[in-house]
Parts: sequence; C-alpha cells; structure tokens
Amino acid sequence: MPSIKDVAALAGVAVGTVSRVINNNGTVTPEIRNRVIAAIEQLKYVPNEVARNFKMQKSNLIALLLPTVWHPFFSELAYYVEDELDDCGYKLLLCNSGGKPWKESYYLDMLEQNKVAGILGISYNNLDHAVKHDIPMISIDRHFRSNIACVTSDNQTGGRMALHELRKAGVRKPAFLGSTPQVSSEITLRREGFVQAAAQAGLEVIVYEPDEPIVDEDTYFAGFFEVAEEIDGLFAINDLLAANYIIRAAKRGIRVPEDVKLIGYDGIQNDGLFHPNLSTIRQPVEEMARMSVRLLLQLIAGQSLEEKVYRLPVYYREGDTT
Amino acid sequence: MPSIKDVAALAGVAVGTVSRVINNNGTVTPEIRNRVIAAIEQLKYVPNEVARNFKMQKSNLIALLLPTVWHPFFSELAYYVEDELDDCGYKLLLCNSGGKPWKESYYLDMLEQNKVAGILGISYNNLDHAVKHDIPMISIDRHFRSNIACVTSDNQTGGRMALHELRKAGVRKPAFLGSTPQVSSEITLRREGFVQAAAQAGLEVIVYEPDEPIVDEDTYFAGFFEVAEEIDGLFAINDLLAANYIIRAAKRGIRVPEDVKLIGYDGIQNDGLFHPNLSTIRQPVEEMARMSVRLLLQLIAGQSLEEKVYRLPVYYREGDTT
Repeated sequence: MPSIKDVAALAGVAVGTVSRVINNNGTVTPEIRNRVIAAIEQLKYVPNEVARNFKMQKSNLIALLLPTVWHPFFSELAYYVEDELDDCGYKLLLCNSGGKPWKESYYLDMLEQNKVAGILGISYNNLDHAVKHDIPMISIDRHFRSNIACVTSDNQTGGRMALHELRKAGVRKPAFLGSTPQVSSEITLRREGFVQAAAQAGLEVIVYEPDEPIVDEDTYFAGFFEVAEEIDGLFAINDLLAANYIIRAAKRGIRVPEDVKLIGYDGIQNDGLFHPNLSTIRQPVEEMARMSVRLLLQLIAGQSLEEKVYRLPVYYREGDTT
Repeated sequence: MPSIKDVAALAGVAVGTVSRVINNNGTVTPEIRNRVIAAIEQLKYVPNEVARNFKMQKSNLIALLLPTVWHPFFSELAYYVEDELDDCGYKLLLCNSGGKPWKESYYLDMLEQNKVAGILGISYNNLDHAVKHDIPMISIDRHFRSNIACVTSDNQTGGRMALHELRKAGVRKPAFLGSTPQVSSEITLRREGFVQAAAQAGLEVIVYEPDEPIVDEDTYFAGFFEVAEEIDGLFAINDLLAANYIIRAAKRGIRVPEDVKLIGYDGIQNDGLFHPNLSTIRQPVEEMARMSVRLLLQLIAGQSLEEKVYRLPVYYREGDTT
C-alpha cells in the first residue's frame, strides 16, 4: 500500500505539502496541489487517518434529519456535518423529513436496532413520543422533553443585536416578523431578545407571530401589513422571510431600507452574487455543525455531556437593507 | 399495528384523504392535513407501503456523490434523489467529494463489498481507474470509459436555445463563457450547441473556456474581458458564473442587459426573492433525480439499461437579463 512518502516523492514535494493538500487547508499553490492530487490518484493512495477509520460497520452511519436539504441554510449545515463526520470516519445518512413525520420515526427505529450510531436532528415534527431518554441524539435548535442536548446559536443575543442595529439605523417603530412553532425551540428567543432590548430602550414593538404551520403566505403577509402599517424597522426571524417581505412591501410602495430598515437571521448569502444583500444576524453554521458532530460522537462513545443547551455566538453582518 | 382506516376514523376523514396527505400531493386543506398528521402521530401509524420497504439491510443504502451539497443545484438534486429513494424504500448516503477524490473511492469500495447497493455520481474527479464495468452506478452529466450510463439534460439543445434567445434579444456579437473539464462530460455540449447555432445564423462567437480547475476567478475573468471586449450577448455555462459575470462586468461599466444580454444554465432560482433574476436554460432537476434513481434500481435488480445516455429536455426561462 502506498504511503504519504510515496505520494510526496512522485509529486516532488515535501510530505507536509501532501498533508496540507489532503487536509485541504488552502496554503498550497494550484500547480502543486494538482501535482499532489495526480500522484494520489496514480498511486491510489488512501490517507492513513481516514483508512484507519474506514471500516464500514453499522455503527459508522449517522442520520441527519432536516426539513429539506433544498434550502441554503440546511444545505450549508449538511455540508459541514458531512465534512466533520468524514474526518471522524463516519458516513452521513440524509433524510428530508419536512411534512413527513413518519420518516423520522424510521431513523429512530434504526437507532434502536443499532443500524445507525446516532442522529442529528432538525425537526419541527412532534417526535416526543418516539425520542427516548439518553439516546445518542443531538438536536439542533429544538428542545425535546427527554434528555436530548441541543446545539443552537445565541438567538437571544441575536435578537438584541437586531434591535440595537435597527436603532443605530434610526428606527423608532420596530416590528418583529415570525411565527410560533408547534414545538419548543430556541428560535423563539430571537423574538424574546428583540422585545427585551426594545423595552429597555423604551420602544414599543409590534410582534407578529401566528401559529405554525404557515400554509398561505398571502394571508400571512396580509395580516402583518394590517397590524404593521406605521413601522420603520423590521426584524424577520430568518433571511428568506426577510427577502420575501421586501418583495411584498415593494408591491405596497414600501421601500427597503428607505422606509423600513430590515434585518434577517441566518446569513444564507455567501457569494455576494444576488441582491438584496440582506443585513442579517449570521449564525455560525460551520461551528454548529462540527460541534453537533463532536457532541454526538461523545454520546456514542458513552460519555455524558456537560450541558443541555450549547449556544454558539452570532454576529451582525451589515448588508444593504439597513 | 394501526391501519390507515384507524387514522381516517380518528381524523374523521376518508381513507383516500389520509392517503393524499401521506403522499403529500397538496389537494388537502391545511386544517384537514393537520388533523390527519395529528392522528398519524397519536396512533404512531406507519404507512404500509413504506413499512414494507423499511427493512434496513446493507443493500438499502444508495450513495450520492456530489462535489458539494452546499450549492443550489446540487442541493435541489439531492432533495429529489432522497425523495425518490425514500419512495422506493432506500436510504441516502451523502458524500461531498469536491477536491477529495479519495472519498469517492471509499464508496466504490463499499459497493464492491455490498455495503452500498448502488451509486449515483456527479464527479469531476478522475475515477476511471476505480469504476469497473457494469457496476450498479449511474453518472450524472459525466462519461466514464466503462459502461456506466449517464443521465443529463439536453445540453446541446440548451446551447442552441441560448443562441436563439440571445438573437431574439438583438444580439449580434455573442460569446460563450465556460471552462474545459478534465473529464469527458455532457456539459461541453452546451458550448457545441451554442457555437453550431451561431454558425448556422452566420454569427461569429467568442469562445472562452480555459482548462479546469479554475483556481483564481480574478485571472479567469480578466482573461475573458480581454478577449471579449466588443460582445453584446453572453451564454454562461451555469447560473452562478452568469451572476458572477454581472458583478464583474458592472465594475467595468458594462450593464446587463443594456450592454450585454446574458443567459445562464441550470435554473437555480426558484423563489424569486433575490436578483438579478437570470434568464436561463432550466434543467429538469426533479426529473433527472427521479430518473437516475429508477435507472439505478433497475441495475440493482439485475436488469440492463437500453441507453448509454439519457438526455432530458430543458426549457428557456426568461428573467431580467435578456
């Protein structure tokens, strides 16, 4: 079996350079990188670390439950989850469970039968009856009645930041645009932080959060425009909702940011190619993904976790909507 | 075990209604839908069809190799692949292999060891040495030397459509913006169709397609602007490249569509929330995904395929860039 030294010799580079290419850290020139890749392919070299971990067993599968991977936030998360799992010798089973709660039950059954080693879940379905105590499962954003730890972003601080930034932009009549989940979720802290910060600043806030599921967007927005006629600032619970607001506001002659300053949440725009470039509270998606994996592997290894909720810091990313 | 009749009785609806909810076909009112879902959850009902297929065996895993799921085209594809697999009782293993060719080799090894039943692959890596004859594998866009069937869109017609639409928009000096893959791919037919249609129309085309990998976008675009000073129309090989062109053209004072009409390929914009809304050749992503799965399951069942290449029709979707 070829070693990393063989690859280095064939490519005419140092062993450390091959290692940098394998770990994809970007400090290698394209020419060198191509030579190393060519040598890897020619020798059919498999990196040691990965080879060691690559013994496909039942317990090497991790299921990731998402509402849908066809969504920029969830696809970014899935990307980093797979990357971290791969580094640890695990494989990713992907399940789009949105609107099909029974699909999630299968993976919970598989877990019980040791056919998957663990589950990472973003679920808006009512799974409490199926999620047992102390199974190797990490939830993202969502609380379960049983003892499942949750990785999330610091939603409350994010909400406070949004109010603070809107105020800095001159907003006096802020509103919150969201919805009330059917399950207990950290996400509602976005509104809480926003409303608290407004109260401390002596500002009244219009809070609009009808019960989920939101099945008709026209009705949803019509209801909002009815209660939020006079606002000059808006915090939307996620970026897609913020972008949707802009389109619908424009039809009523409301301009963003001239008439209404707008801040979203997530930070789904990474390439700068499409507009509006939203001002937003950026979630640390990569860190959330990698931490979720590492915590799950701790559970699988039989260790217990110190916290029930892991909140990772967010930051404000200014765009063109404030 | 509860039956579909129990669910219907508890929800107070007809069995057919429950079936429509399970199959998610949208012709059910939200209120009824919620009642059915609540009944399903309360009874812990598992749909028959799925329950029958849900016997997790080694052969129920299908690997999907993508450069990265964190990309709107690939995440849409992954969504529909998973949906179709789920309908057929299979589970999806997701692998982001971009820049890490050795990851793909693992899945090919797993296939050889019957740890996965089949592979769907979008790969830009050189895998020919590893892909053996007649394994249960379907390629998307890409040709292999061995006998692997390929599902793709009708790239040649797409290229012709792009030229045709640019001409309709008044273009006299068209250019093609792409790159030359290191592997044999159907994608190069986009340029072929475009150039052929231009020749038939008596138009000269500037073709810009440096060898992949494109490692430095600044150099890539600088080279393009050098050879394409006088153009008034552009066909970009994919939408993200088209959007990238707009940003870079604007910095040089070139306006789209006033100075240059622009058409992309893929159709990644589905929500209408972000701009520019690209004029584009839309790939039938859902059909490509479902057909790939069905062909792969035919191979797994030991049947042979009639074609080597399956080309699905594309259509032109007009946006704001022509």
